[in-house]
Order: sequence, then structure tokens, then C-alpha cells
Amino acid sequence: MNNLGIVKRNISRADSAAVLQLSSYGVATIHEAMGRVGLLKPYMRPIYAGAQLCGTAITVLLHPGDNWMLHLAAEQVREGDVVVVACSADCEDGFFGDLLATSFRARGGRGLVIDGGVRDVKDLTAMRFPVFSRAISAKGTVKATLGSVNIPVVCAGALVHPGDVVVADDDGVVVVPKAIAQQVADAAGQREDNETGKRKRLAAGELGLDMYGMREALAKAGLRYVD
Amino acid sequence: MNNLGIVKRNISRADSAAVLQLSSYGVATIHEAMGRVGLLKPYMRPIYAGAQLCGTAITVLLHPGDNWMLHLAAEQVREGDVVVVACSADCEDGFFGDLLATSFRARGGRGLVIDGGVRDVKDLTAMRFPVFSRAISAKGTVKATLGSVNIPVVCAGALVHPGDVVVADDDGVVVVPKAIAQQVADAAGQREDNETGKRKRLAAGELGLDMYGMREALAKAGLRYVD
Amino acid sequence: MNNLGIVKRNISRADSAAVLQLSSYGVATIHEAMGRVGLLKPYMRPIYAGAQLCGTAITVLLHPGDNWMLHLAAEQVREGDVVVVACSADCEDGFFGDLLATSFRARGGRGLVIDGGVRDVKDLTAMRFPVFSRAISAKGTVKATLGSVNIPVVCAGALVHPGDVVVADDDGVVVVPKAIAQQVADAAGQREDNETGKRKRLAAGELGLDMYGMREALAKAGLRYVD
Amino acid sequence: MNNLGIVKRNISRADSAAVLQLSSYGVATIHEAMGRVGLLKPYMRPIYAGAQLCGTAITVLLHPGDNWMLHLAAEQVREGDVVVVACSADCEDGFFGDLLATSFRARGGRGLVIDGGVRDVKDLTAMRFPVFSRAISAKGTVKATLGSVNIPVVCAGALVHPGDVVVADDDGVVVVPKAIAQQVADAAGQREDNETGKRKRLAAGELGLDMYGMREALAKAGLRYVD
Amino acid sequence: MNNLGIVKRNISRADSAAVLQLSSYGVATIHEAMGRVGLLKPYMRPIYAGAQLCGTAITVLLHPGDNWMLHLAAEQVREGDVVVVACSADCEDGFFGDLLATSFRARGGRGLVIDGGVRDVKDLTAMRFPVFSRAISAKGTVKATLGSVNIPVVCAGALVHPGDVVVADDDGVVVVPKAIAQQVADAAGQREDNETGKRKRLAAGELGLDMYGMREALAKAGLRYVD
Amino acid sequence: MNNLGIVKRNISRADSAAVLQLSSYGVATIHEAMGRVGLLKPYMRPIYAGAQLCGTAITVLLHPGDNWMLHLAAEQVREGDVVVVACSADCEDGFFGDLLATSFRARGGRGLVIDGGVRDVKDLTAMRFPVFSRAISAKGTVKATLGSVNIPVVCAGALVHPGDVVVADDDGVVVVPKAIAQQVADAAGQREDNETGKRKRLAAGELGLDMYGMREALAKAGLRYVD
Repeated sequence: MNNLGIVKRNISRADSAAVLQLSSYGVATIHEAMGRVGLLKPYMRPIYAGAQLCGTAITVLLHPGDNWMLHLAAEQVREGDVVVVACSADCEDGFFGDLLATSFRARGGRGLVIDGGVRDVKDLTAMRFPVFSRAISAKGTVKATLGSVNIPVVCAGALVHPGDVVVADDDGVVVVPKAIAQQVADAAGQREDNETGKRKRLAAGELGLDMYGMREALAKAGLRYVD
Repeated sequence: MNNLGIVKRNISRADSAAVLQLSSYGVATIHEAMGRVGLLKPYMRPIYAGAQLCGTAITVLLHPGDNWMLHLAAEQVREGDVVVVACSADCEDGFFGDLLATSFRARGGRGLVIDGGVRDVKDLTAMRFPVFSRAISAKGTVKATLGSVNIPVVCAGALVHPGDVVVADDDGVVVVPKAIAQQVADAAGQREDNETGKRKRLAAGELGLDMYGMREALAKAGLRYVD
Repeated sequence: MNNLGIVKRNISRADSAAVLQLSSYGVATIHEAMGRVGLLKPYMRPIYAGAQLCGTAITVLLHPGDNWMLHLAAEQVREGDVVVVACSADCEDGFFGDLLATSFRARGGRGLVIDGGVRDVKDLTAMRFPVFSRAISAKGTVKATLGSVNIPVVCAGALVHPGDVVVADDDGVVVVPKAIAQQVADAAGQREDNETGKRKRLAAGELGLDMYGMREALAKAGLRYVD
Repeated sequence: MNNLGIVKRNISRADSAAVLQLSSYGVATIHEAMGRVGLLKPYMRPIYAGAQLCGTAITVLLHPGDNWMLHLAAEQVREGDVVVVACSADCEDGFFGDLLATSFRARGGRGLVIDGGVRDVKDLTAMRFPVFSRAISAKGTVKATLGSVNIPVVCAGALVHPGDVVVADDDGVVVVPKAIAQQVADAAGQREDNETGKRKRLAAGELGLDMYGMREALAKAGLRYVD
Repeated sequence: MNNLGIVKRNISRADSAAVLQLSSYGVATIHEAMGRVGLLKPYMRPIYAGAQLCGTAITVLLHPGDNWMLHLAAEQVREGDVVVVACSADCEDGFFGDLLATSFRARGGRGLVIDGGVRDVKDLTAMRFPVFSRAISAKGTVKATLGSVNIPVVCAGALVHPGDVVVADDDGVVVVPKAIAQQVADAAGQREDNETGKRKRLAAGELGLDMYGMREALAKAGLRYVD
Repeated sequence: MNNLGIVKRNISRADSAAVLQLSSYGVATIHEAMGRVGLLKPYMRPIYAGAQLCGTAITVLLHPGDNWMLHLAAEQVREGDVVVVACSADCEDGFFGDLLATSFRARGGRGLVIDGGVRDVKDLTAMRFPVFSRAISAKGTVKATLGSVNIPVVCAGALVHPGDVVVADDDGVVVVPKAIAQQVADAAGQREDNETGKRKRLAAGELGLDMYGMREALAKAGLRYVD
């Protein structure tokens, strides 16, 4: 009835060209390009300033205090993957450290997004292994209960399917469904081109009020200037 | 009956000499010089280590998920201003990013203090545009509802009037009412002079117990040394 | 009936050789070596990236908004001590700043662990004085109510006796009871040696599933691979 | 590319017999029957003690501070439905009050589950209209931005499809996918039958250690009794 | 320079007729009548279900862990007053209990709004003394540091002047500036009359979409019905 | 080296006369009588209004998501005991429900204090089985990892030894070390007698300022009355 205790081996991943293209845009831009959806909760933070990642999701469902499934995830990692970890209830224990990072990297993994805690932050930072997590905690975990690998998971409030594109930077984490990865990449590119021009005009002192033509709508809404 | 939908254009700003003087003191010192009041809540944090700002407040009241008024604020910014943003209910969306920062800076703005979220943190950091915020979030906002500019606002628990001095550093954010800006600057200076001497004595191994003459009061309060 | 208003002067400290040995291991390793106990809550964070400390505890119990006892703690600090501060109720005020750090350091203090707030973060960072705290806040405190020094305290969820070893790094803070300090140091060393070998094998692409021999237990628990 | 601005009118709902059967079991029992998945976050609480509901989901995606879509949801409500509301970013404003409750009830609605705030709690309690929410807040919302109705949503950490069964009581909220509603109902029934017998034995003083036959596993895990 | 250590004795209070009229409306209604401002943060909750109050504010500023000023507030309480307590930094200690409630009531006090903790909840409930607080805590406080009475304070995010009207019910707490108390009362009354009619129409099955005439705006915004 | 995996069978319990006497005082009174120490964090709340308990502690240390040890605790419960549960890391899962309550009660247990979540709240309330917890959650737990029973634990910030007295009511939870139980009971009694007289005087309109003789100290501290 449920899908616990499962490791799905064959998953379809988002098109690699789309992933590559998405890797050049920021999280805020991609989220806008998708219509302002797809963000994970803002409590997901990089463990070191400047961390960023982009790749296809290997999804994992863990239980509180138990990281057994991460070893199964390692086996599924292919070049360009990012491991995305959800937990069946909130838990900030340190599910992940430098040994698992070494293993993921050896398999081609590009980083980790985990709705839980991680540890060995000093080593992970030295490795420049990008991790976005809910917490940092030295608390160790057990290996006793089955979760699953490569099932759809809700991670930090966002639905992630295996193979979806996950992009993360200083602003947070966004997931792009694989079916629309190219479409989102194109829209993000257009948005970014568009912003370059705006940035120049604003830098020259032009007001957004004029550049975006907001004055009429503001007046209509009842805005009053007073002295 | 209320003051929503208002942009006040002519505001009086704190004396620029007082602002300059205040810019050389830390937030903790200024807050002490005021009698331990004026601090914003400690959840207000810099988006990059070492960020600091000092300037006169342009105040903004936003509504959750709506950043329309920030464009009106840009128009009111003068050299040396800091934009101080309150929200009518708690919201951590990304109300502000690098385009608005570009606009504020082009108008002479010195930074942003916002009881909400911001995004484009990588770009803002590269610009060294100081921002103190409640959160970092890539979530975009709409432009649909009127708030106000340059009305008194409660930002992160502190009352801020337009033209007040706002000072922020790694310790947090403090607001100095414009009417007492010079007085506070002088008191902060005295406090800082006073601390320099104390620091030397403590560094030489003298105890605060002796330097501050606390032993009598401690004994009177019933302190017991045991072995 | 209670032990408020007490300063205990003669405390036994953990063996210095054990402390030295512990200083070379990470918090996660030490906590594992102890059987996954002894951690302070993960909300205890360093005030600057890379801060770390290891030393013997001078314990302090404060009351909300009152830092009087920290001056009494300074008098008790000996070379190699770390001041560990608990509060009788949650409070994020700035109990500690650069003057007290100067005093602690002059007495031989190695750092501070405080279940409360601190300020003068810029100066503390410049001094490279390691502090692990619950919060950063510029809010000043009074000196009016007696707490105690060198009594057993509960700090951020962990019981700390005076003289226990306290170790902190990017992963958090752990306390090692003085009676078992050497034993824990030895176990940590063994664990670290053990991890070095594992790291190499994982880096070479070996899976934890095989290295740890997990496959049988997983199958027995009902794991299914699906395509 | 995205599914914002959509109202889906024809949805399939879980079988009414299964819904009826599920209405007689508690949330904890149903969640266990599903393999310990399907729960919304525990911050979802009833607005009055004893509130409970069971019905088929009309799903809604709102934006922070904007409740426009709830009026569209009212139009879709049929006898036996529960409105389940997600928000594109965390927001505790009062999106819902007694007028909407009156409208939902008039259409056959059985209650509300909202990852946001509600108001008019006194009236809702008097109406015995069951509401499970993240917060209570008097803060009003605007009607300016399109969300969607009857798309899959992530509500308080759980994925909900339109037509799924939603059950809530003092223990929280659980969602049962419509495809397995009958299967879960049956499993829940068996579990409940099973518990009745256990309750009697425990009430008579028998220990769970014996009843569940745990002693061997405990001994094997290394349990030691000491005096 | 600051206004600490002050008790202001003569304050002007809102007109008693306006206060009486406001006492018949709910917090949500009053807040809407003011243009959706004036609310305290939603973490302010009644200590017992059904608590409500309406009166003129005696304001108090306390420091963390210190309730000395509440005794000075008692002296200022007149018939119909509500004591509104702010704290110079977040603190959840139990500043207030049944003895102070007895004193406030003896002086004519109608209740308490406190951005802090309270205790003796069982007794306060038995007395039906309405309290809206941030927390419940048995932790006692000291009487050592001066705050002030009847100065403007920021309480739970809202600016309150002495003599303003404070209204609280199950939905939260709202403050009405005394200068506009009558105006707000009238607007609230109109709003309530208006809602009565709407409630009937909705109860009869009419949709808000039609009653509020929303369909055109929704279509214009791009709403799509799909099957 | 550590005390995990241990069940201590023979514990000394606080004197039953002292426990009986303590059961007649409130938590706030007892905590004051102890010198304002011994409280658990205020996030510990009763699952139903009016719940209260007093008894001797059976202590339990659990791990996140694992309630195995509660079954071992049941075996140790004697008439008049209260089970006090700590967790090695924060976890809000539902470790406890009506079956365990039935078992505890059958053994003479008086209630539960748990720094974690509980479920079956409706049934527990119907049983009038008093529970004070950090959270309510339907999330089930596993039985896989050893903790311990009747070792000293830190529960919600307070150190609890087996056999200590635990008292809980609407104001929170306090622990009284068994060695001083009688002494605290006597001091609490004196304090309560003392309060009765004060309550009468305050009810008659006398001010605490006069009754406690505070005016001189206030004047000395610099209090100013202004008009």
C-alpha cells in the first residue's frame, strides 16, 4: 500500500542540456521563470557562504534519527546528480558527514539538499562539497529503519520527483520538474537578459516607477503624495 | 482615518554632523548611550559578515507578499539615506533584490533594513550593499496593494520615524530619534573613551570585580565563596 | 536549600593530557566516542566561521538580563579554562562583549560557551576569541541578582560540571565529563583512525553498502529494488 | 508552464463508503495503517478542543496575504468536501473567517485545513465548524493575485490531490490518497480491533515487554538491568 | 535623554462612550475598520478560551526578568483600564500572577496584555481575569531595575500610547489610538451591519463570487476553468 | 563508558509524606520556595486544560523517533510514580499514546512528562491521564535503539534524577530533588500562607508599593513621577 522500503533504480533524468543551461541562472530567476513556484522553504541554508549546486535529483525518504537509506542512495548516484533528502518528521540530527560526501562525490554526485541536519561542516567546506540543509548538528544517527530511494518526496515543502532539476545558491533552493526543464531554462534566460537592461537604467538614476510605468496604477489605487 | 496609501515627500532628517559622528560607534555602544533602548529585535541579521551602515531613515510600510511601495521609496531616497521597511504582518518573502539595490544606490541610498526577506544575496554581497533582514528568500512578491512611505513604522519591534538615524553592524540594528542624535553621539563617544581605559586594565589582568568596585555589593547581596 | 549565590573556588579539572588529546578531535567524533551523548543543542553556533575551542569548564548560572556573575567567573579562570554559561530562563540579551573577553583572555581563558546572547562580535572576531552562543544581541544587561559560579549547570540541554572538558567547533559543542576524559580521548582517536581508512575506500568508489556489509540486513528488513 | 490561475471543476473523489469508514478512525491509527506516512506537520492544530473532520479534499493554492481563491473554492465544494489550503510561502494572516465558513457549509463543506491563519474563532467555534490551521490571526487579506483550485498542493509538508481523503482530530491531520482509501480504511479497522485486545491486557497489568515479546530483542541489543 | 524611570500620572484616556461601543465588536472587525493596521503579533494568546477585554491602556515598559514596574502600574489603574506591558527585550518569564491581578482588579483594572509570560493561570482563570500573553511560565522575576509607566511602548509589534483603546478576544489584540476611537467604533459598526446581510445570503447558498461581483476581475486576471 | 542500555531497578524515592504535601502547592509556589530554580522550559504544556500531577520520577532517555524504552519504564513504575522522558535530540514525534497510558496507570503511574510528542490526545483526555509534553503529534515511532531507564536525565532543560518529585500544573513543570523534598514542601507552605494575607490586603485596594514598602527603593533608584 505504501512505497516504503523501495529503491527505484531506473529513473529518467532531466535533459542534460537543460540542466547545464539552468546551472547558469540564479534560484530567484528560475523561480520567477516558473511562475513563482518550486521553492523549498527559506530555512534551507548553505553550510558555507557561496555554496551552489545544480543537478538531477536522487530522492531519499528518511525517518527521524536514521540515515540508513543514504548508503542506498550512494549506489544510485550518477554523474551530475544531487541527493535530495526528506524526512518523515522534522529532525535536525546530523544525518550526513564527510564520509558520505566522499562517497557521493566518488560516484559523480554534485551536492546535497537535506531537510535535516548535517555534520563535519569543516571538512565539507574544505572539500567544497555544497550542502543545503535545515540545520547543522553533530548528533549521530542509527541505521535501523527502511525508508526509500527515488520515490517522489516532499522536501522542505516542495514536491521533488527523482530526475527533477535542483538548483541552489545563496538565495535558497528551487526544484524544476524534468518535463519543463528546457522551457524553464529558456524563460529564465529571457528574464535575465531583460534584467540586464533594467539594471543599467536604474544605475543611471531612472526610477522603477517610470521604467515600469507604475504611476498610473498607483494613482488609480489612491496613492497620495503629502508634504 | 489611517495613513495607508501615503508618500510623505518632505521629511526632516537628523543633523548630518550627528549622523557622521554616530557612524563611528558600534550599535552596542549607541544603544547603551541611549539608556539601553532603541534596538531592533536580534533576528535582524546582516546578509554578509561585516556589513554595516549608518544613515537617515526613509520608512516604508509594506503588506505581506507585496513590495510595490519600495519603488516609491526609491524616489524619496537622498544622499545618506537608509531605507527601513516594516510589514503589516510577518512575512519572509524576498521583497528586495539587486535591481532595487542598484536603484537605491543610484539615488544615494546607503543600505536597507527590512523586517522581511531579501534575495539576490550573491549580487548584493558583490555590490557590498549592506542589508539587514529577517530572512533570505528567493520568493518573489507582487505589486498590488498600497502601503505608505515616510510614516512612523514599527520595524522589528522598534519605532522608527522618517529622518531618524539608523545604525547597523554585526551586533544588530539601533534607531536613534533625530531629536537626540547629537546628544546620543556625544554620550556614545564618552562611553567609548571610557571603555578604552578599561580594556587596557583588564588586558593587564585586573579584575572587573576590582575595577568596578563590585565586591562590597556582592557581599551585601549574600555572595559566598566556598572551597 | 539551593546553591544560588555561591562561588566555588577549588574545582578539580580534567587531566590536562586528556584535554590536549581531545583538542585534536572534532565534536562529532567525540560525541560518537561517548555513545552519542553529551551534545549541547544545535542552536549553539560559533560567532565566526571556523571558531573552535577546547578547555576545562568554569560554569556560571546567570538570570535573564543580568551578567553580574561573569565578573566573578573571570576571577576563577585559570590557564586553559572555557567559561560555560547557563541561564535560569531563556534569554538572548548580550551578556558578554569584548571587555569581558579581554579579561578572560588575560586570565588564561580559551573561550566562551553561553546559552544566551553576546555582543561586540566584530571585536571578538578580530581578537579571534572563540564564542559559541544561542544568539547575537547588542542588548545590555544589569548587575543586580546573584547567580553562582562553579556549580553543576544545564547549558543548552547538557549537564556540565566545573572542570569537565568542553570542545566546540563548526558542528557544535560537546561536554566530556572529567572522569572519563582520557577514556573518551582514546576512543575518539580510535574512531578517527578508523575513519581515515574508510574515507580512502569510499573515495575510490567503494560503496558503504559493501564496506559496512549492510546488504544482508537491508534485505532482511524487506528492502526491494524496483525498476 | 505552470498551473497558476486554474480552477479544475471535475475531480474524482475517493469512494464515499471508504470515506465514511475512515471517519470512524483516529488520525494516529490511519497514519499507522498507511505505514507511517501522510501526516501534515504537527503545527496544524484545531481551533477548538475536540474539533474533528473527515472528507474529500478541494485543494487551494493561495499566495501570502491573499485569499481570493477561497471564493472560487466555495463554488467547487460539494457535500462531504473539506477545503485544504496551501500557501506559496509561509504566511499566518487570517485568510478565513465566519463568512467563508457559512458559505462552505451552505455548499456542503465539512471543514477547513489551512497552512495559514484564520480568524473569527469565536464564531467558528459557536458554529462548530472544524478548522485545523497553522495560526490564528485577525489580520485581513486582499484579493489581488491568482492562485489555483483543485491542483495538487503541498499543505503543511504533505502532498494532497483533489479528491483525496483528509481526516483530522486532536492528534493532527492525515491525508489518504483516494486510490488507496478503502485499503487504508480496512487496515485501520484491523489495527483498531487489534488495539482493543491489547488495551484490556495492559489495563490488567500485563507488561508490553511480555505482550509484544520484546525481552529477547532487548537482551540481544545489550540491555542491562542494574540495581 | 531617555524616558526610563518615569511614571506619568495624568494621562488622557479615550472617550468612554467610544470605548463602550468598541467593546461590542470583535478584534478582526475593528482592525478592518482601521484599514488593517493596529494588530499585535498573533503570538499573543488568551490564557483561557473565551477571554476578552476592552479598555484604556496603562502602558508599562519592563526589562527582562524584572516586574518591578507592575506595582507602579497598579497605582495608576483607574476604572476601565487595561494594563499593556512591553519588555525591552524578548522574555517569557512569569512577570504577573494572581496577586497582581487581585490588585489591578481592586483598582478597576479590566485585564492585562503582556508581551511576556504570566503564571498562576489556574487562579487567573478562576477569577476570570482576562490575560493575553506571549507565554505561560512559572518563572519568577526580580524587582531591581527601573522601567517606566505610561510612556509610549511597542508591545508585540504595535505602538501603544497611554489612554489608547485596547480590545482583545480569541482572534488576538488590537490597539485603537484614542484620537480616532469614536471614528473607528462607527466604522466597525457599519462593517458589522454590512456583514450580517452578507452572512444570510451566503448561508442561503449564494456564492461570494457573485455577491462581491468578482467574476469579471478574475477573468481579467486570467483565470481559467478546466475540466 | 556511558550509561546507555541500562535499566536501574532499585531507586530511592522521595519521602511519600513530602510528596503528598507538595501535591497541594502550585508549580510557581514550589519553584519560588526552591529559590527560583528547578523549572522545565515553558514549552512543556498540558495536553488538556486543568491537567495536574505530582509524583516520584521514573526517568527515561529515548532517541529520536524511538520509544522502545517506554515499555521498560512501565515495568519500573510503582504506585505514585510519574514517568519523565528526555530525548537525546529534539524530536516531536508521538512517542506515547493511550495504550502506554493504560499500562502506566495499571502499574500505579500518575502521569507523564515528556520532552517530545504524544498522541491519542482525545483518549488520554477522556482517561484524565495527565500529560505534559513538548508537542502533540500522530507520528508513530520505532523500537530499535536502546536508551536507558532511571539514569539522571536532562528533560526540557532541567536535571531530573530517578525518585525526584515532579509537580506539574497549568503553569508548567518543576522538579524537586528528593533530598530536599520535605524542606521545599515546608517552604512552599510558608509562602502560600504568606500569600493569603497579601491577597486580602490587595483585594481591599492596598497597593503593593505600600504593602511591600517599595517606595523608598524606587526613589533611591531614581524614579520620577511626572504629570
